Amino acid sequence: MKVAILPGDGIGPEIIDEAVKVLKALNLPLEMATAPVGGAAYAASGHPLPDATLALAREADAVLFGAVGDWKYDTLPRHLRPEQAILGLRKHLGLFANLRPAICYPQLTHASSLKPELVAGLDILIVRELTGDIYFGQPRGRRTAPDGAFAGAEEAFDTMRYSRPEIERIARVAFEAARRRHGGRGGKVTSVDKANVLETFQFWKDVVTEVHRDYPDVELEHMYVDNAAMQLVKAPKKFDVIVTGNMFGDILSDEAAMLTGSIGMLPSASLNERGQGLYEPSHGSAPDIAGQGIANPLATILSAAMMLRYSLQRPDAAARIEAAVQRVLADGLRTPDIHSDGTRRVGTAEMGDAVVRALS
Amino acid sequence: MKVAILPGDGIGPEIIDEAVKVLKALNLPLEMATAPVGGAAYAASGHPLPDATLALAREADAVLFGAVGDWKYDTLPRHLRPEQAILGLRKHLGLFANLRPAICYPQLTHASSLKPELVAGLDILIVRELTGDIYFGQPRGRRTAPDGAFAGAEEAFDTMRYSRPEIERIARVAFEAARRRHGGRGGKVTSVDKANVLETFQFWKDVVTEVHRDYPDVELEHMYVDNAAMQLVKAPKKFDVIVTGNMFGDILSDEAAMLTGSIGMLPSASLNERGQGLYEPSHGSAPDIAGQGIANPLATILSAAMMLRYSLQRPDAAARIEAAVQRVLADGLRTPDIHSDGTRRVGTAEMGDAVVRALS
Ligand SMILES: CC(C)[C@H](C(=O)O)[C@@H](O)C(=O)O
Ligand SMILES: CC(C)[C@H](C(=O)O)[C@@H](O)C(=O)O
Repeated sequence: MKVAILPGDGIGPEIIDEAVKVLKALNLPLEMATAPVGGAAYAASGHPLPDATLALAREADAVLFGAVGDWKYDTLPRHLRPEQAILGLRKHLGLFANLRPAICYPQLTHASSLKPELVAGLDILIVRELTGDIYFGQPRGRRTAPDGAFAGAEEAFDTMRYSRPEIERIARVAFEAARRRHGGRGGKVTSVDKANVLETFQFWKDVVTEVHRDYPDVELEHMYVDNAAMQLVKAPKKFDVIVTGNMFGDILSDEAAMLTGSIGMLPSASLNERGQGLYEPSHGSAPDIAGQGIANPLATILSAAMMLRYSLQRPDAAARIEAAVQRVLADGLRTPDIHSDGTRRVGTAEMGDAVVRALS
Repeated sequence: MKVAILPGDGIGPEIIDEAVKVLKALNLPLEMATAPVGGAAYAASGHPLPDATLALAREADAVLFGAVGDWKYDTLPRHLRPEQAILGLRKHLGLFANLRPAICYPQLTHASSLKPELVAGLDILIVRELTGDIYFGQPRGRRTAPDGAFAGAEEAFDTMRYSRPEIERIARVAFEAARRRHGGRGGKVTSVDKANVLETFQFWKDVVTEVHRDYPDVELEHMYVDNAAMQLVKAPKKFDVIVTGNMFGDILSDEAAMLTGSIGMLPSASLNERGQGLYEPSHGSAPDIAGQGIANPLATILSAAMMLRYSLQRPDAAARIEAAVQRVLADGLRTPDIHSDGTRRVGTAEMGDAVVRALS
């Protein structure tokens, strides 16, 4: 089993180190190879996603990704900025299905902005389509407005697009995930759209409704994106699986992650049709705390667990990591982002070491 | 001063009645004329925005709008559904600037999902562009995908567009609002974009930055939309004025409204370049409680106050209404949506009557 390790920028290298430490401690037949990505790759070789890095990712069974982005690179032209690496990997590897759990860990309920009774026990899954929508739709650019009330003025434009097969395959991922979360049958999928305004999302709603015929045991509900943004704040536990497009998913998955209060704990998986996947923490590169040894490595360690489950067919090893993380939390170890009175403050490496110890 | 009164569907007529009651009690030289809109108009005449209703709105100085939408009309073809009325009014009247305050009333802090310390005293303003973006951008529709990985498949598409003058005028509204909120100088504007992915919002960011040169006393910060969705949950009081496009504004303004816990209290204004405006509560038509006399009329009454301030140049009368609302809250009157122990539960009409009494 080949794993490409892409540490990236900011706290990326530190948190990846801990995840690699945990993977090594499992003594699995893993072949790990590291390559630069993001700002670090740009600094080294002039491009955020060098050909060699992309080639390594392509031939791997899975990619373990840290984080990219740093203020240093904010003034670069867009096609050279660190985020292009992640967009490029998604597109080139066809990683259309982004799975983002929003879980509120019992020990961390107090860290949420929301009242404890609203988030205690929260466990929802956001399935975000990741290779279509306005993120990649052509045409796009700047031009002189060809028509409309401001014809003749300078304008910029993008194209939102979804085709039937793109919607069908992500809908299936969501319905299957709902079943899996409920022992093989049942569960609920909330499909989030803006069918009252957008042609793309009226079509989305129609196709999701059609695909649902193959999953009669799963409940399907449709919700407008503005309402979904509200219901996540009001009653997040009413959701089970949320499925939506790339743009709405970007916003809602971050909103949901933040309201758990445990964003430093949340992994994510981005999968293609062949089961290849890219695994990364839900949080960003946090350049403000990089190099201080205080970043929380648990989201990355849990991303490695997702990798073992979804791309490497080792659910046993995944479960061992997850149990170990539960154990260190129960033991009261906390990085500064989740620290509270009565718990023990530890650094990045100490947390990784503790997870390794808890594996056995 | 001419005011068009458009009650609409669901609780619309009930809450509008109370706002009209309050306006009448002020004894101002207001000429009020009522017309059907939304589902009610469709039921009466076959179209959600009849020509006569649009004509009345056009010749009025302001429109006081209840709410539209009812499950009954969900199966109609899109162009006949109730929401088309509100989209049509925005477009035809050129109501490009949507002002949505997100305020947490001291007496209602407990009603928020968020911990009290995070929302107590919250008072932010969301300025949403309302006539451009992907809401109205042409071309849009269904077709056979002309290119891309799914060329040949059935697809739907929409166009996101912003021209320079559209961005300039909404940016000015936001900078002016920031100044007004801080006694004429200063304040902060957070411009929300997705410049890392979208051409439209890189252009947005560039133009807002240019317009900012005319407002050096106002602080300008740029934030990605996914981060804004998170920061609203994490630390909403860090914002002052948020300015963004139509689609992102739809999502963020509803998220912000919900996290105040006072959505039944929040008014909104939608203005055009001539100062004409449409005023409506931030909440919807709530068909589930329509006709029961329990809806909260305060958001609509406060929308009438905004109307007096922004379109009818009667800030004195607006302030009287706002003080009266504060008074009834201080007196402990609450409709069911904001009721809590130790306060007095009242119905829609009783709340309106109480505001009228508190005017004097
Ligand atoms: C960095 C950016 C392009 C990216 C996105 O918008 O998808 C990020 O926000 C994410 O959600 O992974
Ligand atoms: C009803 C709908 C078209 C509308 C919108 O999306 O603008 C509503 O959500 C709003 O925010 O006023």
